Amino acid sequence: MNEYELIDQIRGKAWSHKLVSRSIGDDAAIVDTTTDQQFVVTADMLMDKVHFDVSSDPPQLIGRKCLAVNLSDCAAMAAEPMAAFISLALPRTLSDGWVGEFLRGITDLAWEYETEIAGGDTNVWNGPLVVNITLLGQVSRGKAVLRQGAKPGDRIFVTGPLGGSRGSKQFTFVPRVKEALELNRQFQPTAMVDLSDGLATDLRHLCRASGCGAVIEADAIPISSAVESKDPLRSAMTDGEDFELCFCLPPGRADALKKRSQILSCAVYDIGEITAGDKLVLRDLEGHTRPLDWYGYVHG
Amino acid sequence: MNEYELIDQIRGKAWSHKLVSRSIGDDAAIVDTTTDQQFVVTADMLMDKVHFDVSSDPPQLIGRKCLAVNLSDCAAMAAEPMAAFISLALPRTLSDGWVGEFLRGITDLAWEYETEIAGGDTNVWNGPLVVNITLLGQVSRGKAVLRQGAKPGDRIFVTGPLGGSRGSKQFTFVPRVKEALELNRQFQPTAMVDLSDGLATDLRHLCRASGCGAVIEADAIPISSAVESKDPLRSAMTDGEDFELCFCLPPGRADALKKRSQILSCAVYDIGEITAGDKLVLRDLEGHTRPLDWYGYVHG
Repeated sequence: MNEYELIDQIRGKAWSHKLVSRSIGDDAAIVDTTTDQQFVVTADMLMDKVHFDVSSDPPQLIGRKCLAVNLSDCAAMAAEPMAAFISLALPRTLSDGWVGEFLRGITDLAWEYETEIAGGDTNVWNGPLVVNITLLGQVSRGKAVLRQGAKPGDRIFVTGPLGGSRGSKQFTFVPRVKEALELNRQFQPTAMVDLSDGLATDLRHLCRASGCGAVIEADAIPISSAVESKDPLRSAMTDGEDFELCFCLPPGRADALKKRSQILSCAVYDIGEITAGDKLVLRDLEGHTRPLDWYGYVHG
Repeated sequence: MNEYELIDQIRGKAWSHKLVSRSIGDDAAIVDTTTDQQFVVTADMLMDKVHFDVSSDPPQLIGRKCLAVNLSDCAAMAAEPMAAFISLALPRTLSDGWVGEFLRGITDLAWEYETEIAGGDTNVWNGPLVVNITLLGQVSRGKAVLRQGAKPGDRIFVTGPLGGSRGSKQFTFVPRVKEALELNRQFQPTAMVDLSDGLATDLRHLCRASGCGAVIEADAIPISSAVESKDPLRSAMTDGEDFELCFCLPPGRADALKKRSQILSCAVYDIGEITAGDKLVLRDLEGHTRPLDWYGYVHG
């Protein structure tokens, strides 16, 4: 499969977004702007033997994951995905069939999330598979949910069970785009982050950006049934690749969410509270606290 | 150098663009929109031993090139660069000094072109260096210059000598951003492309997109003094990595440009004419023509 056949394969299957006025086939894509709109841009590079294994993982799931991690970042801003730009370094040894399945994993998910494949760059080489996707999304002006903005007293939520993802849902997780948009419309989270490196690390990012600390209730952490370690709580907080959302709500809106959580297509778990200061602590059922000094998974 | 130190190195040196309202440090960057504006988006992935050689090329020049090729694509749309998103797969074996120099190559050029480093993704692995940069630019609504739009009778221009770039200016070429903006303001090219794969290939893209052919005057092709091959004309048209612009102007505006070419900071060479049909031909001084059936450099 040469570069042109490969691009045709992508183009033939792609969703077309109304704001993308020029797509694949020129030196750059052209994206229209509207008033009262902002764009969000996020990029993720995934590499063989780091984020997936070409020798054993199904190509369609590898492709799916490469886009899904970007959709999760977009969700974490409460933005709506629009257009993806896909850069590939393809090993010469991959068969056309493999590459076709891989692309199908990307384009099927793009279709599902109404995201146009609007450009990119294709290369063949003697090295391992490397995939970079840059995702462009849109959000109403001023409505993006940042990592900063959490306030002492806010409740902290996560959208699903945590841990053990590497052996299970790392390829099949649902990017929480629709859930984030609905959450933002109805409850306006004060801060949000997606859980890619594990709650212990990502919540730390949120707290640092917001200039505050947190108390996590150990028994409130939803532990995935995929966790098999001897220290399930630690696994849940540090395994990483959960791709659930972690967000904060002031007490009143937190109660409202708990009463009406069925409006979301995912579960929500209240796991703790934002505090003044900069400490992250874990509290057990007896009320004993200890510093949350675990760190999440770091690739490579 | 860990991921955070590396990001700090980038952030500390970066240009800040007024439309980028959130930059490095959240799940995504946020870019403001204005009315009467469109965005262009282009992505290039560069790999060790394909586009540069980590073992012998200076790190600063490698970094420079990774951004420069994107700026050249942005120029080819007559758009103004705004924000770059840099994804890295860094070999574990690279020293902090090497990485620092490499980043300086990127950030120095970004500063020169008033481009913010607004995000990206950093990874360390056991594989070779892979760099993807996605560049966001802006253009007044409807003013982007596409590959399509050339008409029979249009003159064809290039902005500099061609060929031999791999041994010379592949790392130091000037992305023709300012020249493209000035050209578009004063002469409105009907079509434009940047020369990355060689004139023979890139002009073919332009002609195909415009639904027309071209006659190239063999003796009018500016051959770079860096060309050392036995067939200099062929080298000039197929070596690739020139990163000059190729653009088309109707006869009247073409004459005007030739009279006032000193307003541009680069040379312009009139090399031929757009024709009806779909043939690309090369014409020699005696008026003999032959099909232009050379193909430019294909990486890998």
